[in-house]
Amino acid sequence: MVEGHGVMAFSDQGINLMLPLAHKAREVGGVLAQSSLEKRNNALQAAAFKIRDMQAEILAENAKDIAAFTGNAAMRDRLLLTPERIEVMARGLEEISALPDPLNRILEEWERPNGLRIRKVTMPVGVLGIIYESRPNVGIDASGLAIKSGNAILLRGGSDSFHSASVLHKAVVFGLEQAGLPTATVQIAPNSNRERVKEMLHASGMIDLIIPRGGKSLVEFVLHESRVPVLAHAEGLCHTYIHTDAELDMARKILLNAKMRRVGICGATETLLIDEAIAPSFLPVLVEDLRQKGCGFRADKKARALVPGLTAATEQDFATEWLDSVLSIAVVSNIEEALQHIARYGSSHTEAIVTQNEQAAQQFLNATQSAVAMWNASTQFCDGGEFGFGAEIGISTGRLHARGPVGVNQLTTFRYHVIGHGQTRP
Amino acid sequence: MVEGHGVMAFSDQGINLMLPLAHKAREVGGVLAQSSLEKRNNALQAAAFKIRDMQAEILAENAKDIAAFTGNAAMRDRLLLTPERIEVMARGLEEISALPDPLNRILEEWERPNGLRIRKVTMPVGVLGIIYESRPNVGIDASGLAIKSGNAILLRGGSDSFHSASVLHKAVVFGLEQAGLPTATVQIAPNSNRERVKEMLHASGMIDLIIPRGGKSLVEFVLHESRVPVLAHAEGLCHTYIHTDAELDMARKILLNAKMRRVGICGATETLLIDEAIAPSFLPVLVEDLRQKGCGFRADKKARALVPGLTAATEQDFATEWLDSVLSIAVVSNIEEALQHIARYGSSHTEAIVTQNEQAAQQFLNATQSAVAMWNASTQFCDGGEFGFGAEIGISTGRLHARGPVGVNQLTTFRYHVIGHGQTRP
Repeated sequence: MVEGHGVMAFSDQGINLMLPLAHKAREVGGVLAQSSLEKRNNALQAAAFKIRDMQAEILAENAKDIAAFTGNAAMRDRLLLTPERIEVMARGLEEISALPDPLNRILEEWERPNGLRIRKVTMPVGVLGIIYESRPNVGIDASGLAIKSGNAILLRGGSDSFHSASVLHKAVVFGLEQAGLPTATVQIAPNSNRERVKEMLHASGMIDLIIPRGGKSLVEFVLHESRVPVLAHAEGLCHTYIHTDAELDMARKILLNAKMRRVGICGATETLLIDEAIAPSFLPVLVEDLRQKGCGFRADKKARALVPGLTAATEQDFATEWLDSVLSIAVVSNIEEALQHIARYGSSHTEAIVTQNEQAAQQFLNATQSAVAMWNASTQFCDGGEFGFGAEIGISTGRLHARGPVGVNQLTTFRYHVIGHGQTRP
Repeated sequence: MVEGHGVMAFSDQGINLMLPLAHKAREVGGVLAQSSLEKRNNALQAAAFKIRDMQAEILAENAKDIAAFTGNAAMRDRLLLTPERIEVMARGLEEISALPDPLNRILEEWERPNGLRIRKVTMPVGVLGIIYESRPNVGIDASGLAIKSGNAILLRGGSDSFHSASVLHKAVVFGLEQAGLPTATVQIAPNSNRERVKEMLHASGMIDLIIPRGGKSLVEFVLHESRVPVLAHAEGLCHTYIHTDAELDMARKILLNAKMRRVGICGATETLLIDEAIAPSFLPVLVEDLRQKGCGFRADKKARALVPGLTAATEQDFATEWLDSVLSIAVVSNIEEALQHIARYGSSHTEAIVTQNEQAAQQFLNATQSAVAMWNASTQFCDGGEFGFGAEIGISTGRLHARGPVGVNQLTTFRYHVIGHGQTRP
């Protein structure tokens, strides 16, 4: 992320430029929390319309960002907008508008012996702050999820994408205006250096939740620096454990999919754990499957004794999220050793066991403390869409509030409604 | 809180003394998460037995703390243990043991079109850190709630109560041993200065949740300094709003209870908001009720015009959690003005409306973003016991994870169990 070459000039001499935005966001929070589903959906649909309508302008602004861009080809590709990518963004907003209302859902309800009725009812978190890199679509997805869930949001994208983010923001503001919702629902940070990020991270009490979307260094910076609660996805170091009672054909299919379907997503399996009872005959088969797809390996001593030509794994390899066509392999004595390996090297994202043994599966599911534990399924299913949540803003690997895929429901919190008829406390 | 005169000598030269404790706590986390309800309950019951059994020793250790104590009378009273107070602690553990199991509850369950079954299942948060002042009972309650909910916990009480806390900790460890649970489930910080607190607050990744229990300055210090998520109760600036359609007898009873039942608890009403349509005849009645109970007042201009002899309220008064026999009073034009007052001065704790008008009540309940919104009931009902949660570790005024009373269920988090039969992602 290249910082500090903003198009707008601001003095950074001790003035927090994000606080006034956060104040405005806080002020509109009450309006949003009580707005009808119809209004929120109207805003999303009008923004989708406007994005399509402004296609030429969006491409022109994006071209300015691209022209000034100095990063590598992969980063440039993420920054680039095309007519197809613009259409995907518009359709994404329409899909969010089709989701059920996440607000005012009654999560629990009970009555006390004194006749008090207590209801746990969903409401928006309040003010979200999203800090992302130069991927214009992230800003649109986040805006859509925020509007649907009744949250105000501050967008702070990479400064390389400021022209693109600004023109897209205009389309969202148009949608809010059309629906009669406050335009301060979605605000964009002035372009500048990383000071704006720090200001957001220190706006405790004004911003309720920070969501970093980006590489490991961004997430670690945010986690270290933030005084505001953070919903973060640190790493996806996912494991697939093939138990001795696995159905072998199923295990082959699952591992191939979990590793190779898309190697760059966080739900991709990075490490294979396999029971030593079946490894001598079965590991060579698995390695051959993956080799044919272009996968490389980092294997422990036991695995190397069974399959010739594997590269030796270091301790660090087992702690590495490859996001590439590389698989770490460890042969384990039993399920306990597999669970210990996961507890030691895992990142609390997703782990899978393949077995026909229900007792072993139950043990694995209960012992796993990661956000998602799977039985006889590919780790690549860890995804908001696959869970039925619709769009997601990311996958949380934290322990609190939301874990796993974060969709509109996970961007809500709750309060209790207590309904009496004059009760006083004895 | 007097710091720095510990009975044990430790070098503070850059050595984090809490990290080894946090590591041990993390290590036993898996055992606890999978322990049976019976074992956890046995530990609670055996600890209760031991507390009673050790009464003489507990009183003797407490006497040492009391002898060395230099604080004021109210603080000394909170530190003091008596046979009755020891019995209350023991009974508290037994009551926690009688609660249903908070672990492995299925919160939601659904099936995807591809046949994947997804379950949202409760599990312990992991490692809790509680930072409290010199109230020995807080350490016992927290230990009990942690054991029941399968969490490991680090206790860091005020150094003034170190002898008392240590001897009580021995009883808890006895309970864990009797039940065959790891003794590292409940660990106590070595006595020393505030460095131990900072070490806990910086143990991100090792401690999952910090719970400060104490005065405003302690909570603010923790919120400012912590890199670990905090579950805190900042303030209880609760409002009771008497709407123009209130049943007047009910309103009198509720306000008297909400303000005066116990003035020092966080659920006590601190501000009365009353509609101007009924204030001329009704406010004098309410003031007279409260005056007879020894309550004083800080009233806005409109209220002072209706009732002679009221002290003028300053802006700061409306932002003050009195925790005393003092009530702030504002006369409002309508429900919108009442809601604006609450949004401006409230602390996100508990607000109540008194009215027979269902539409107004619904508007109030929906608009209030505090943890608890009540209709025709006393704000003093904001309490874990009154909600049916059993014992509570505090009341959360934050926006995320847990809001309102925090009992054993609120000390859990969840993970998804995904159950397939060989599905791979297309």
